[in-house]
Amino acid sequence: MRRMLPLFLLFSTLVACAQGTGARSDELSGEWILTERVSGEALTRRMRLQLNRSGGITGDSATYKVEGKLNGADITLKWLTGSGRLLSSYTGKLQNGTLTGEADVGGLKVQWSARRPAARPPGALRTHRFTPKEFHRTYSSAHSPVLRVFPGDTVQTSSIDAAGTDEKSVRRVLGGDPLTGPFYVEGALRGDTLVVRFNRIRPNRDWAWSGQSLIGNALMPDYLVSMKRDTEFNSRWKIDRDKGVVYLDSPTVALRRFTVPLQPMIGSVGVAPQGDNAIQTIDSGEFGGNMDYNQLREGTTLYLPVFHEGALLLLGDGHAAQGDGELTGDALETSMDIEFGVDVIRNQALRTPRAENAEYLMSIGIAGSLDQALRVATTDMARWLESAYKLTSNESAMILGSAVKYDVADLVATQVSIVAKVPKAVLASFATNP
Amino acid sequence: MRRMLPLFLLFSTLVACAQGTGARSDELSGEWILTERVSGEALTRRMRLQLNRSGGITGDSATYKVEGKLNGADITLKWLTGSGRLLSSYTGKLQNGTLTGEADVGGLKVQWSARRPAARPPGALRTHRFTPKEFHRTYSSAHSPVLRVFPGDTVQTSSIDAAGTDEKSVRRVLGGDPLTGPFYVEGALRGDTLVVRFNRIRPNRDWAWSGQSLIGNALMPDYLVSMKRDTEFNSRWKIDRDKGVVYLDSPTVALRRFTVPLQPMIGSVGVAPQGDNAIQTIDSGEFGGNMDYNQLREGTTLYLPVFHEGALLLLGDGHAAQGDGELTGDALETSMDIEFGVDVIRNQALRTPRAENAEYLMSIGIAGSLDQALRVATTDMARWLESAYKLTSNESAMILGSAVKYDVADLVATQVSIVAKVPKAVLASFATNP
Amino acid sequence: MRRMLPLFLLFSTLVACAQGTGARSDELSGEWILTERVSGEALTRRMRLQLNRSGGITGDSATYKVEGKLNGADITLKWLTGSGRLLSSYTGKLQNGTLTGEADVGGLKVQWSARRPAARPPGALRTHRFTPKEFHRTYSSAHSPVLRVFPGDTVQTSSIDAAGTDEKSVRRVLGGDPLTGPFYVEGALRGDTLVVRFNRIRPNRDWAWSGQSLIGNALMPDYLVSMKRDTEFNSRWKIDRDKGVVYLDSPTVALRRFTVPLQPMIGSVGVAPQGDNAIQTIDSGEFGGNMDYNQLREGTTLYLPVFHEGALLLLGDGHAAQGDGELTGDALETSMDIEFGVDVIRNQALRTPRAENAEYLMSIGIAGSLDQALRVATTDMARWLESAYKLTSNESAMILGSAVKYDVADLVATQVSIVAKVPKAVLASFATNP
Amino acid sequence: MRRMLPLFLLFSTLVACAQGTGARSDELSGEWILTERVSGEALTRRMRLQLNRSGGITGDSATYKVEGKLNGADITLKWLTGSGRLLSSYTGKLQNGTLTGEADVGGLKVQWSARRPAARPPGALRTHRFTPKEFHRTYSSAHSPVLRVFPGDTVQTSSIDAAGTDEKSVRRVLGGDPLTGPFYVEGALRGDTLVVRFNRIRPNRDWAWSGQSLIGNALMPDYLVSMKRDTEFNSRWKIDRDKGVVYLDSPTVALRRFTVPLQPMIGSVGVAPQGDNAIQTIDSGEFGGNMDYNQLREGTTLYLPVFHEGALLLLGDGHAAQGDGELTGDALETSMDIEFGVDVIRNQALRTPRAENAEYLMSIGIAGSLDQALRVATTDMARWLESAYKLTSNESAMILGSAVKYDVADLVATQVSIVAKVPKAVLASFATNP
Repeated sequence: MRRMLPLFLLFSTLVACAQGTGARSDELSGEWILTERVSGEALTRRMRLQLNRSGGITGDSATYKVEGKLNGADITLKWLTGSGRLLSSYTGKLQNGTLTGEADVGGLKVQWSARRPAARPPGALRTHRFTPKEFHRTYSSAHSPVLRVFPGDTVQTSSIDAAGTDEKSVRRVLGGDPLTGPFYVEGALRGDTLVVRFNRIRPNRDWAWSGQSLIGNALMPDYLVSMKRDTEFNSRWKIDRDKGVVYLDSPTVALRRFTVPLQPMIGSVGVAPQGDNAIQTIDSGEFGGNMDYNQLREGTTLYLPVFHEGALLLLGDGHAAQGDGELTGDALETSMDIEFGVDVIRNQALRTPRAENAEYLMSIGIAGSLDQALRVATTDMARWLESAYKLTSNESAMILGSAVKYDVADLVATQVSIVAKVPKAVLASFATNP
Repeated sequence: MRRMLPLFLLFSTLVACAQGTGARSDELSGEWILTERVSGEALTRRMRLQLNRSGGITGDSATYKVEGKLNGADITLKWLTGSGRLLSSYTGKLQNGTLTGEADVGGLKVQWSARRPAARPPGALRTHRFTPKEFHRTYSSAHSPVLRVFPGDTVQTSSIDAAGTDEKSVRRVLGGDPLTGPFYVEGALRGDTLVVRFNRIRPNRDWAWSGQSLIGNALMPDYLVSMKRDTEFNSRWKIDRDKGVVYLDSPTVALRRFTVPLQPMIGSVGVAPQGDNAIQTIDSGEFGGNMDYNQLREGTTLYLPVFHEGALLLLGDGHAAQGDGELTGDALETSMDIEFGVDVIRNQALRTPRAENAEYLMSIGIAGSLDQALRVATTDMARWLESAYKLTSNESAMILGSAVKYDVADLVATQVSIVAKVPKAVLASFATNP
Repeated sequence: MRRMLPLFLLFSTLVACAQGTGARSDELSGEWILTERVSGEALTRRMRLQLNRSGGITGDSATYKVEGKLNGADITLKWLTGSGRLLSSYTGKLQNGTLTGEADVGGLKVQWSARRPAARPPGALRTHRFTPKEFHRTYSSAHSPVLRVFPGDTVQTSSIDAAGTDEKSVRRVLGGDPLTGPFYVEGALRGDTLVVRFNRIRPNRDWAWSGQSLIGNALMPDYLVSMKRDTEFNSRWKIDRDKGVVYLDSPTVALRRFTVPLQPMIGSVGVAPQGDNAIQTIDSGEFGGNMDYNQLREGTTLYLPVFHEGALLLLGDGHAAQGDGELTGDALETSMDIEFGVDVIRNQALRTPRAENAEYLMSIGIAGSLDQALRVATTDMARWLESAYKLTSNESAMILGSAVKYDVADLVATQVSIVAKVPKAVLASFATNP
Repeated sequence: MRRMLPLFLLFSTLVACAQGTGARSDELSGEWILTERVSGEALTRRMRLQLNRSGGITGDSATYKVEGKLNGADITLKWLTGSGRLLSSYTGKLQNGTLTGEADVGGLKVQWSARRPAARPPGALRTHRFTPKEFHRTYSSAHSPVLRVFPGDTVQTSSIDAAGTDEKSVRRVLGGDPLTGPFYVEGALRGDTLVVRFNRIRPNRDWAWSGQSLIGNALMPDYLVSMKRDTEFNSRWKIDRDKGVVYLDSPTVALRRFTVPLQPMIGSVGVAPQGDNAIQTIDSGEFGGNMDYNQLREGTTLYLPVFHEGALLLLGDGHAAQGDGELTGDALETSMDIEFGVDVIRNQALRTPRAENAEYLMSIGIAGSLDQALRVATTDMARWLESAYKLTSNESAMILGSAVKYDVADLVATQVSIVAKVPKAVLASFATNP
């Protein structure tokens, strides 16, 4: 069987909601978060209801229309397409500010409930400090959130290195990219975009380690066969945070003056993937993950598709420096202090992660080969330009054909990644376009 | 960070065991299944202990040596390499036939326990009938087994189609390849091979459905752009089980006499993948999964690597017929009656699924591109031949160079698959070799 | 700059011709072969003219219309699209049964000439015996034909092995797949299809040689690094033509009884490629070439696109046996006796080679990766079915989805090849369709 | 048959030369260029001879030793490996400063000749002005040189655009990347490296044209199917050479202020490929060709392997600007004024083109897929670093792992290209290493 349809399409048919006459309007009218349990999966979506005086209910959810009745505590709802076709019907009860009941969705009997979105606490945007104690090695909706934050909030936290060692050089857990989180972002629902602004990514210790030799998949067979490997080669690095450079701790003679700039980045960052999937944090996909993109650094904003309530952001696998593709399999792995801000763009369903910094828009294509990853990235960037600036395919082609750049991000997991970038300079003419 | 080391390597350092003097030898000596809980993951392995008169313990586990002491209920164990290097040390108690305690494994503190393997009930091998009520859409060790069987047993069961519809044409669950199982095979541990012999795979209803058009990834851009798609095209098929053919239910004029042979197969079959991973049943990997290989049919034996105790076999996604690669995205999807036998090969850790029928040995390469999948398949077949017949690389090259065949199995998931096959006829000369 | 437009499209604008009043009608009316010399390239096409009584000329060439005048020996011609748009105009002279002159083609000044097609000699179809003395290591229109044959004729010849050694074990030329030919097929023009029926492909000596080990591109890095290579390994093979088997000449102990069936095939066969290209005979492309497809054997008919007058067929690189993909780089290389028949299908411009045997239709996809080669093959097979049986895309999808098979043909040159096959058995229902 | 061995390996066995006694030492001693004609191919190599008083000859050629005798005009030579093994033997005559004769090379009888290298004319390095009149659409050793220059010389010339249109907007020849040259560089022989420094690449007219839409191979099927193509879209560009920008000539409303920087580059540049191969100028390979790399611009030095005497450099296909990969198939195609300097590095046989500018070393990987092209590029860069700075594989891995960058150069021909770059800044520490 082929790739599953995204659930928000399959279940455009699953939705609904509830309640009230006269005085009960407050209790029912306004925004709800609807959850359906289908075949063991929880599907959520946003819905807006309005109770009129006669007990009739009108509403909408994305592009769908909702119609219903509230009779005492009993509620019925129907979900209709724009053209009036019935998609699904719901019955239930309004009790204690919550709706619960059963629905018929395309012949499947489904349990549903709905509740009010969480309300932001009074006062200004908040900055949360969070010190991680546990770490996760899968992206999964099964992990309990460690912190709940609201759009606009800022989080200050830290990550341990890919082998599980922290800023005090203490081994905390198994290796394999153990990550910090998940962070639950209130109001983020399936079909939204999670915004993560990296304000600060800095090593919190003075050493890193890397792989010793190049990965086989990036090399030709004859070189692989002929190359000599010194398995005692010391690939521990020193991080000089003051001078902003890194160099080998015990270099060979030839490399005794070799230094590279300190360019801290986050290797693995993503949200809980679709459905019940649990993907190891060393792998990647439309949910983000181990993209190992050296431009995911201070000053970059990352956009991720949301598949579960709260998005459930995990991050870590910091690198003090990394060439494109992470050719040594493990880059200069170290622990990091991280500060990031979050936001949510409602009803913008990304197909692949995007990013943005002062210079570029970036579409991150992730697939099983570079050729396929480039197709994902190019297509997404064409769509981004067309949607953001109301362009035709020919118009976006003029921009990409004359100005696109590609970065090879990651070569080491099951999935590889290529990034299509467009300089903001050439997009400046569109700024005043609207 | 790169791909994680297989856990059984990382944790060659994690293991242990048990107790007794004099009369307690029965209680301690013999085979144990050791479980360690590390960073939330349960790692199991087989271990054999022998208590001597003085309370000393000797033993082994795979290639490692075990040494220890039993003093009353208190047990200490050390895990050593062949050359005597200490890998880890355990302390614990023997109580009620179970061992529990703490271990130090490379600096990590770990909880461990050990118990006796389940004993086969007295009597002959058994045939189990199992009627599925629930279905799973991920391969995962989180699912509870529906049935426990012993090596040598046979299971008679059924599967619903890829859209969740059963033999009575009743929609049971969501689509996306819902599978039957998981079946727990007693004695199967991480590092073993699970053997699944397909005795019978037959449609249990008289219709199937398929995709309507070819998948884009198998086509050239100019054809894709020019091709006309009739989205009303009726791709429901009739299965004539007596005549052994399938044909379109409401064919167009051109296809009114078009029939293809009924060749029932299983599209998705696999075990719980490594660690906490939960992989959707439409995807594939070293654990098997949606390989969509049309030779996984009656008479074929499949070999899968085991990552969790009991292996946790899931299977389904039956196809009445399927061309190579499942070009229509959904093949001729139908519900099936399935009978299979199981067995376990201890301490044979496969890197990719293998299969065997009357004619061929088959290595199934699964990767992100056909080029890479072919590398996996070819390499595994070379290793299989070299290991089975004690051949050098040059010798296996003579066989592959003159006689290998490839099948393109699957093109539709994140991962694609190619199978390297060697005819048993050309291997006949090795039968009398040993 | 991107891939050139096929010349027959670019030069749908280049064409024309010829002459006559009253008694001169015989001299002008009928079929001509037009040649234009543009930027050093000779472009040919077929054209049919009709002189009427008043000196007016009408005619056509493929889908274009030709109009003109003959005035004494002076001729003018115009080339028009179906809708009457002028594409090019020609002036010239009719002398000694030949037309020559100048043309204006989209602003370019072009020399042109036209002559009558060669006439088949009276009598039955002929069988030619040809003993090669020279051999070529490029596919190129620069090579002079060694023999001119007519459609329907048969050729009996021989080929030397990939290293240049003949049936008497004499080294004749440099290695690198030296080929026999080129054979000029009268009447074959750019835009036609050359048909080559292999009646007989048999080794004419009793030994072959092969590569010693597997090619790196088909293997995983870890195996490559770990494998041991014995560079003294003896990979000379004995061919037992009576028993129809091959085996190693000086086998190791393990391979002492190892034999594989003798399955003679032609590794490299093709026509002169487009334009002035000269492609080494170890590479492949739309013109055919080193496809190393083990089904190019006795009983198979190969279809090749024609790019130059006479097609200019070259062939050789015989293999006594070869697994899919030619994994040892050199298969069981030997010299061959070859008999083939030729034919021409006019105005059928293939995009990639096709083949046919008793069981299958085959589209041979050739590209830089297996993924891309499979796209070429699948697309061509869809087009073949749609064109041969007047099917829609949905209808061809039903056939491919339920019955296509793929062969991996070649892995060793710059280009690799995959073959899409459809069993004739499932196409039987179309036989009576028309 | 697999890829041919590079000829300079095959023919390490083919070589030789020449003679003298007493007064004839001047006539024989010193450097010669030896040419062998084997199976229709001319193979050349450099050789140094010394005649001693007794008529004995000693000499060398690359790593080989030469020994022989001069007796009157009769010369005999033997070619030996370092360990004294005989590779080939030559007989011939010394007449008029030229050697000619026959050789036995591994059993093949071969015609050979040798002549003195051309002498640089007295005086300083020269700057040649060359106005092209003819253009070539293949890279091939069959084309006659248009100009002979010496290492150190400079050439000022021009190129027409990819469609054959020159600086006066006159269509000169057929399209398909017609190139200027070939330029013959004295002293360049097979196994050397040709150095091409681009001093100046500037449009010599004020317009360019590009493709209208994105190439299918860079896009996902669903986008391809859904995108709308306006085939009337006007993709002619204006070049403002004073302001250094380009913009659409007749832009749509949305693109009316869209401009991109003028960044002139050369799309196709290369030497005559190995053997008799003739490769269309829109394709690429180890010889260079249509690499479409937007860093091949003013200030960049390109290194190409030499396969034929004189190297035979062709260049053209200028782009006023081009995004990575040339996504519109045709970039901003225009005619150019070009100035370049040439040099030769003797006995440095590159496997793939390299380049260098003020910031980076660059290895250009060219292959049939991006995955494979990246392998070529990475491997070549590792080798370059190891050879230039005497590094081990582990040491080059430290540099690449921490600092490599990749550019996607070209996506549009049969072959694609990826460039591995290392910043010179991180290599600065090696400058004083020697």
